[in-house]
Amino acid sequence: MEFSSKLLEKAVYEMSQLPGIGKRTALRLVLHLLKQPKEQTGLLSQALLNMREEIKFCQSCHNISDVAICEICSNQNRDHQLICVVEDIRDVMAIENTGQFRGIYHVLGGKISPIDGIGPSQLNIPTLVEKIKTGNIRELIFALSSTMEGDTTNFYIYRQIKECDIVTSTIARGISVGDELEYADEVTLGRSILHRVPFENSFKNT
Amino acid sequence: MEFSSKLLEKAVYEMSQLPGIGKRTALRLVLHLLKQPKEQTGLLSQALLNMREEIKFCQSCHNISDVAICEICSNQNRDHQLICVVEDIRDVMAIENTGQFRGIYHVLGGKISPIDGIGPSQLNIPTLVEKIKTGNIRELIFALSSTMEGDTTNFYIYRQIKECDIVTSTIARGISVGDELEYADEVTLGRSILHRVPFENSFKNT
Ligand SMILES: [Zn+2]
Ligand SMILES: [Zn+2]
Repeated sequence: MEFSSKLLEKAVYEMSQLPGIGKRTALRLVLHLLKQPKEQTGLLSQALLNMREEIKFCQSCHNISDVAICEICSNQNRDHQLICVVEDIRDVMAIENTGQFRGIYHVLGGKISPIDGIGPSQLNIPTLVEKIKTGNIRELIFALSSTMEGDTTNFYIYRQIKECDIVTSTIARGISVGDELEYADEVTLGRSILHRVPFENSFKNT
Repeated sequence: MEFSSKLLEKAVYEMSQLPGIGKRTALRLVLHLLKQPKEQTGLLSQALLNMREEIKFCQSCHNISDVAICEICSNQNRDHQLICVVEDIRDVMAIENTGQFRGIYHVLGGKISPIDGIGPSQLNIPTLVEKIKTGNIRELIFALSSTMEGDTTNFYIYRQIKECDIVTSTIARGISVGDELEYADEVTLGRSILHRVPFENSFKNT
């Protein structure tokens, strides 16, 4: 791509560093900003800078927060003995949206992935193990994605805490509510049969 | 979407103001920036601000430029009597990439669209008409998209200049090189028959 302006080229280049944004999309976005009042570019840039400079992570669960201890961790109406282990804050948002979980979270910040050079020490695993060993925790729910890295991470944590007196569980895998069996992938279908639930439980929603 | 941080929410909101970027995508992009070194957010924000503040438009053709007269307009090896009228700078880039055009451009900055409240005076039409009436122009090529707005814009300009001694043309519409006839839409196929070219010309590439 040949640009008639270095300023434009630089803006497109930086925009295209974002994941899933190619050069063409970046150009479209940047030209949109050029057509809008200058204030909009100012608001976007300032919002990104403020966030990157000032954002905090909860000292207890590592969720993103504007204060030292996040709203979930500081809510005394939640069950602090029940911890749900998730990969990142989008998972916290997704589970919170269901309204089904009243425990607290622990955000790992990723999964163990030797190929990408991500080991346990780069993740928020030591603080989780410490919390379980010293705290008053009843149950740990693993809610990582069911990939090789997810399974490896679950198992690594499990081995660290298996001597603690604590229940561990994973979220149920199965056919999505409303989905037709014939379109489900076979691994999911297999798991949904293996992990079948008593029929009386199946229509209890809460 | 419930956010655990106002800083995050604001960044996601501003990002999702960009066209084609929904809240979910905006969140993914913003979380990516959080995982990268702070410098990357700084580079992106600064590049956008610099571009928005300092970019110039060529005083002759309205192409984006870092100088008052763009490289194309100031190139004496190009044919300054041949003007290609385009909607925006992406069209200039696309045509330049073909290497087939040695004239100069005139960037309108949009198309006439009464529904969107865009009339001739909001576009770079007066400067084009002025250029043709006072200058030494031989031919005007319309290269707008073939939509109702494109056709309206072409016709509006045509009426303004029809008394000038100048050739007007539009770029050829037809079946894309390599495409199968049966998959072409009927309007395009119809035009490609109506505007057929002498066979001897069809294998001349330049
Ligand atoms: Zn927290
Ligand atoms: Zn120019």
